[in-house]
This record gives sequence, structure tokens and C-alpha cells, in this order.
Amino acid sequence: MYKLYSMQRSGNSYKVRLALAVLAMPYRRVEVDILRGESRTPDFLARNPSGQVPLLEVEDGRYIAESNAILWYLANDTVLRPDTRLGRAEALQWMFFEQHALEPNIGAAYFWLALVRGGRDLQTHALEDWMERGYAALRVMENHLKAHDYFAAGQFSVADIALYAYTHLADTCDFDLAAFPAIRGWLARVERRPGFVPMEGRAESAGRKIGV
Amino acid sequence: MYKLYSMQRSGNSYKVRLALAVLAMPYRRVEVDILRGESRTPDFLARNPSGQVPLLEVEDGRYIAESNAILWYLANDTVLRPDTRLGRAEALQWMFFEQHALEPNIGAAYFWLALVRGGRDLQTHALEDWMERGYAALRVMENHLKAHDYFAAGQFSVADIALYAYTHLADTCDFDLAAFPAIRGWLARVERRPGFVPMEGRAESAGRKIGV
Repeated sequence: MYKLYSMQRSGNSYKVRLALAVLAMPYRRVEVDILRGESRTPDFLARNPSGQVPLLEVEDGRYIAESNAILWYLANDTVLRPDTRLGRAEALQWMFFEQHALEPNIGAAYFWLALVRGGRDLQTHALEDWMERGYAALRVMENHLKAHDYFAAGQFSVADIALYAYTHLADTCDFDLAAFPAIRGWLARVERRPGFVPMEGRAESAGRKIGV
Repeated sequence: MYKLYSMQRSGNSYKVRLALAVLAMPYRRVEVDILRGESRTPDFLARNPSGQVPLLEVEDGRYIAESNAILWYLANDTVLRPDTRLGRAEALQWMFFEQHALEPNIGAAYFWLALVRGGRDLQTHALEDWMERGYAALRVMENHLKAHDYFAAGQFSVADIALYAYTHLADTCDFDLAAFPAIRGWLARVERRPGFVPMEGRAESAGRKIGV
């Protein structure tokens, strides 16, 4: 059985929990609170030298890091991975977009505004850049979703799971999705998928009801 | 035949040219100078709404964006893609690492210091962050390479090509690789691979001889 090192309030960790739930794969979960330094202990660094969650133990002593690499591994030969070579390339295209255009901006805003007490004051200068680049990423997504139900290969896939995590957190950290109707429709579609599980602790702070 | 929209001095574009060369795959190349706005024309945006290079046309009117997604597509069923499921996960792990830990820092420093005239003065504040995070990424790579010849699955793969591009540009934009002997050894190993091609225009500005 997989063992997942994960932090409840981490969007990157939530991606993996969501994929495991949609695929109905059993796993053991180990909570690692990065805010309390639990990913920087010698034990954890021996498992993942980058000191990051999520981390998946796939067999005894063999680990995969990087949320989207874990998603790709889990999706192998499942309905979450597109069947064609071009479809798989489309899924990965959006997953790499997620890691350099969405996560570094909405993820950073979420971390400092929603998780770290007093974080807003520490990051005043950076926040403007995150908002500008985060909105630019949301515009690219909105344009795609105007003409497509999902991101890759005309189907619900790991690309949607990768993008859902931080997009659904956007309204907890100053982003306003009012001007993005196609994104809001897609968030609702993802939340109606069989096996969908909400991110624990997220709904309380949201302006939007999740998973209903 | 593939058609590649590429910019000569873009590290992300070079990744794709290097993979095509190593795989001895013929292609047509279209130079797009992003510094002159050529990736923001209506024609180009119709091909890639993100307005970025590289962009690969794989069949008439079908495009793949994102350098590492293109690499994965090209590596399909070739020696550049690991054979095992776990090996492929390792390769993707390093490719996602490249896009969020290496490229946004060394790539940004390269862009503003090596490509944009007067860029250093425009980015004084950001440079410190790029250097700090770029060196952190290089330390993770150095630690891995102390015990491994290549990044994933014990073999030369697309992960090495993805990481080579900006790592080999580090010494053109203030990074000093003197304290990273394992990285320097790996750069030299990549440069000795059959089919290796240097990045045009790069060698002139380097403190290190490339591809010899």
C-alpha cells in the first residue's frame, strides 16, 4: 500500500490525495507540518533531500517527489491518463504550465496570505507580482475553458487535478474569480466527478461552496 | 516532419533542439525572436495562446507547448525515456523540479543579465532572490550527482536534457559553478553524448569550453 507524506493545507499535497480518492486507491497518510519544520528533520531529508511534501513511498524505501510527477505515476494505465501520445503531451503541457505559471503565484499568495500569520506584511512587495502573474495564468486557463470542458484530450485527467488544487484556493488569497465564468464552471464540473473529495480545512475560509 | 518554433538564445528552446539532435530527428526550424515581440503577433498567438517558445507542430495544425512536455513527447519509445514506470516517474520528478526550482531563477537571471541590455539595473531587487533560489537548486542537483552519473533511472534521459539547458548557462549570469564539481562533471558527460549540439551563440560568453 502506498504511503503518502502530505500536509493537510498544502495544495500540492491535496492534488495527490484527490487523485488517490478519484482512483479509489487505498493509502496510508503521514501528516508532515512544514510550518513546524517537520519536512526539515534528518529523517525526512533522508527520504526527500528537497525537504518538500507531497512525497509518495511506492515501495519499501523508493520515493517519488514533486506533486505532478506523483500524479503521472498514479495515473499510469488509469482513466486519468489520456490514451493517445498527443493527449498525454497535452496533459503534461498543462501540468508544466501549472508548475511555472499558476503554482508559483497563487500557491505563494495562498501560503503567505492564508497560512502564515502576518505573512501579508512580510510579502508586500512580492504580492503585486504574484497577483499580476496569477491573473495572467487564470486568463490563459479561462480562454481554454471557453471552448473545452477539461484541459487535455477532451477528458477529465490528471491535468485537471493538478490545476484544480491552486485554482480552487484562489479566492482564499485575494484573487477574484468573478470575471472567470468558464473557470468557475470547470471547478464545479471537477467537484461533481465520482470520488471527488474536498480539501479539508478549506471550505471554512472560502467564499464559494465546494464539493456540492 | 516536425516544425519547431524556437528562439536561438532561449534555453527552453535549446532543450528541444538538443533532444532532436540526440535522437537524430529531422525538423524544420522557425526562428521567433521574443525580444522583438514575434511571439505576440496574432498569427503566433493563434498557434500558442501563451505566446511562448518553444512550440512544436507535430501534425498539421496540432501544436505542443511547454519545453518539457515537448521533450516527453519526443522521447516516447526512444532511449531518452526510461523503460520502467518508476524510472519515468524519476525523470518527470526532475523535469518538474527544473521548471519550478531551476528555470525560474537561473532562467530569469540569464534573460535579464545576458539577453536584455540594461536588464541588470531593472532587476536589482529580484536578482538576490534568483541567486539564492538558483544556488539552492544547484545544491540539490550537486548532492544527487555526487552519487549518480545522470538524474533518472541510472541513464542519460530527457531529464538530463531538461536540466542541462539552464545549468550550462549559469556561468553566463553570475552563478559560479566552482563549488559544484559533480555538476561540472555531469555537464561534461552530457556534452560527450553522441549527437550533442552546443547552444549557438552561447560559447562566446562562457567561462567554460562547451562540447569538447
